[in-house]
Amino acid sequence: MSSISTQPPSGFRDFLNVEAARRFRLKSLIAKTYQSFGFQPIETSALENLNILVGTGGGEENEKLIFKVLKRGEKLKESLTKPNVQENDLTDFGMRFDLTLPLSRVVANARNEISFPWKVFQMGPVWRAERAQKGRFREFTQCDVDIIGSSHRSAEMEVIQAVTHAISGLHGVAGAGSKDFELRMNDRRILSGLAEQAGLKDKSAASFAILLDKKDKVSAEELEAELKTLVSSSGKLDLALKALSGELTLKDAKSFAEEAASHLSLLIGELELMNLPISRVVFDPSLARGLGYYTGTIYELRHASAGYSIGGGGRYDQLIGRFSKQTYPAVGFSIGFDRLLLLLEETEKASASGDESTIFFPVMDEKLRMAVLDLAKSVRQSGRAIDVYPEEAKLKTQLKFAEDKGHRWIVIAGETEFQNKKFNLKDFKNRSEVCFDLQGILNHLK
Amino acid sequence: MSSISTQPPSGFRDFLNVEAARRFRLKSLIAKTYQSFGFQPIETSALENLNILVGTGGGEENEKLIFKVLKRGEKLKESLTKPNVQENDLTDFGMRFDLTLPLSRVVANARNEISFPWKVFQMGPVWRAERAQKGRFREFTQCDVDIIGSSHRSAEMEVIQAVTHAISGLHGVAGAGSKDFELRMNDRRILSGLAEQAGLKDKSAASFAILLDKKDKVSAEELEAELKTLVSSSGKLDLALKALSGELTLKDAKSFAEEAASHLSLLIGELELMNLPISRVVFDPSLARGLGYYTGTIYELRHASAGYSIGGGGRYDQLIGRFSKQTYPAVGFSIGFDRLLLLLEETEKASASGDESTIFFPVMDEKLRMAVLDLAKSVRQSGRAIDVYPEEAKLKTQLKFAEDKGHRWIVIAGETEFQNKKFNLKDFKNRSEVCFDLQGILNHLK
Repeated sequence: MSSISTQPPSGFRDFLNVEAARRFRLKSLIAKTYQSFGFQPIETSALENLNILVGTGGGEENEKLIFKVLKRGEKLKESLTKPNVQENDLTDFGMRFDLTLPLSRVVANARNEISFPWKVFQMGPVWRAERAQKGRFREFTQCDVDIIGSSHRSAEMEVIQAVTHAISGLHGVAGAGSKDFELRMNDRRILSGLAEQAGLKDKSAASFAILLDKKDKVSAEELEAELKTLVSSSGKLDLALKALSGELTLKDAKSFAEEAASHLSLLIGELELMNLPISRVVFDPSLARGLGYYTGTIYELRHASAGYSIGGGGRYDQLIGRFSKQTYPAVGFSIGFDRLLLLLEETEKASASGDESTIFFPVMDEKLRMAVLDLAKSVRQSGRAIDVYPEEAKLKTQLKFAEDKGHRWIVIAGETEFQNKKFNLKDFKNRSEVCFDLQGILNHLK
Repeated sequence: MSSISTQPPSGFRDFLNVEAARRFRLKSLIAKTYQSFGFQPIETSALENLNILVGTGGGEENEKLIFKVLKRGEKLKESLTKPNVQENDLTDFGMRFDLTLPLSRVVANARNEISFPWKVFQMGPVWRAERAQKGRFREFTQCDVDIIGSSHRSAEMEVIQAVTHAISGLHGVAGAGSKDFELRMNDRRILSGLAEQAGLKDKSAASFAILLDKKDKVSAEELEAELKTLVSSSGKLDLALKALSGELTLKDAKSFAEEAASHLSLLIGELELMNLPISRVVFDPSLARGLGYYTGTIYELRHASAGYSIGGGGRYDQLIGRFSKQTYPAVGFSIGFDRLLLLLEETEKASASGDESTIFFPVMDEKLRMAVLDLAKSVRQSGRAIDVYPEEAKLKTQLKFAEDKGHRWIVIAGETEFQNKKFNLKDFKNRSEVCFDLQGILNHLK
């Protein structure tokens, strides 16, 4: 025994028991919904060459947060002998900090194998070297849908449909009141228009968007003060302040960002017709989501009871062009899986339970183990999960094990039962018990 | 456009289209089988503190292959100013190289939350800084089942059952002739006994096992010569040579490793009674699998047509004790997912096809898009996946898209069809076409 800490590294987590089961179930459900909208799975590598992650538009904020991998072998030795060795000499790969950048690289790399428009989904961990703090993790899972090669409004409807249905599909399963989700929408060109109206360009325009994005974090007064510092001539701030207060309408936006405003009007109208399984779709002229890749529409999914977003996305028509001669229009939407889980835990009323479909087969007498396993095999073939206690133990110990795992059904098969070919099916939940032959058990559980 | 390479880093891979779909499907199936045997999912962090990965029994071979993560911020700056900076000064975390070590750390860390015996499965990528070469990857996926807290033979039967059924469950789906799998078994104590019989101890005993493990890679003569170098007095080699030639029986082994030989005898007998979905279970006295963690039985799954193992495992009763005051008996079995895929590709006769269950809904006229999406929604509620083309396009273009994705069913819904509430269901595979109302389509597809 050593004194090594057995915790995962700070900001990293392990998942087990009920929590792991819930994550597993919800991931499967999200994937199933994505597939039900015709999206196909892809997987990209966890590590990327550093020059893919750095300087290609991931946003400076994210680049600072890359976990970098130490060079190995001779290359490392060589670097270490340098008199004034620098960080860049020591590392060649970085861990991906999102799934959009790897996807864009893959499109550029494999464009000849891809039939466009390409509807794909990917679910996997990403890593960011954030300062570890409550609710902020260094390893978290994203569930993305993307359509590459279409600049049509319908492509945006598709990703929005898939994500909102994926989240509403968890309703009941996880206890989330999915109707309380709202979709906020904006367009990068409206943000640019607002900045332009305020006389801001380039870097100042970007700072402007970042300011707007802080809306939920600082007071209205503070924000206004900061805006006034940024914009020297305060007279031009009318529209920006109107955007901040949420009073700016799409009609207003038409005066300075006509194309974007018309596009959003039509899209929001169509989404309303579609009767999405969320409470509402709203135009939010201050929504910026850090920008980074975005060139057109920007989305964010929020829940009434949470102060954080559950998902976000938008159009990124220029990103693939950074890796490829050919540029491809692209739109994506990502669910922040860990935040969704956090929300479900906060809003969930029903206590988390195990998988009710599993049937437990205690081994009443060690001599009967082979017979019990054989019986279990027959029932398992009907598609049911069967659990047995993996060693000789008292019935009480075995039943405690089944209860701890949340199993609802138990089949009692002792010597007499095998002789009569009749078994007792116990329902832990309703405390009832019925006697059946094998076929009867299968029928009863259907 | 830049001249950046869009390939993933050397030894890493992206998966898309048919290949990604197959991986996704097979992973789900393996997980489903593991669950059907009562194993529950867990997830561990991708990164570990380096002192967990190094020196705690992962085997020197694996430790050399750790991808190490560069320190960040002030800590890195500090290290870089050291006059003679060393590798260890620069790194704090490492990427996990298997799933067994993280699991063992988790057991030590969370033992108070765990109800033993603990039946768990985990599926995820692991990373090894191997020299990239054909068929050897630096990122690959393992699918592990483990039982912690039981030293009973039944626990071993459970993990073997789960793994062999998981692989046989892919039969048909993937075209693998699962009956051609064989399970080879040995016991660390038999290997130790053989070494002891040859007068070898400690390091020499380990070298002896490593030598045996090379059986499939070098000629019998070479191996015998190497063995003779290792063992000074050649007279003691009889049993080792018998083990190498495969002639050593369990009965022979009883003379120098009684407990292990009896255990294996009983276990193999029981596995035969269980009628596992593989061709055979054999005792292989030369099987060593690099040892590392193993303390008792060792397993390996091979396929008749492949020169590599598809999975392996065994008992590792001492590993958890390296992280904890309390030690726990443990047994696990891991499927090498990428090797399994490789094997399926090699043996698969049927060409890979898309998901036949998806139905494609072309949009015959852009005015009808909302109506088509609405119809699609109704059919999707029956559990079917529905795909639509995400922008305005000619019917020909849309059908090409559906064909490329391997969709079998197409529902033609134009203006007339909506008026009559009758739609044409086309079967791409059998080139047939039937006319139905919505309910009729659902019934027909059942």
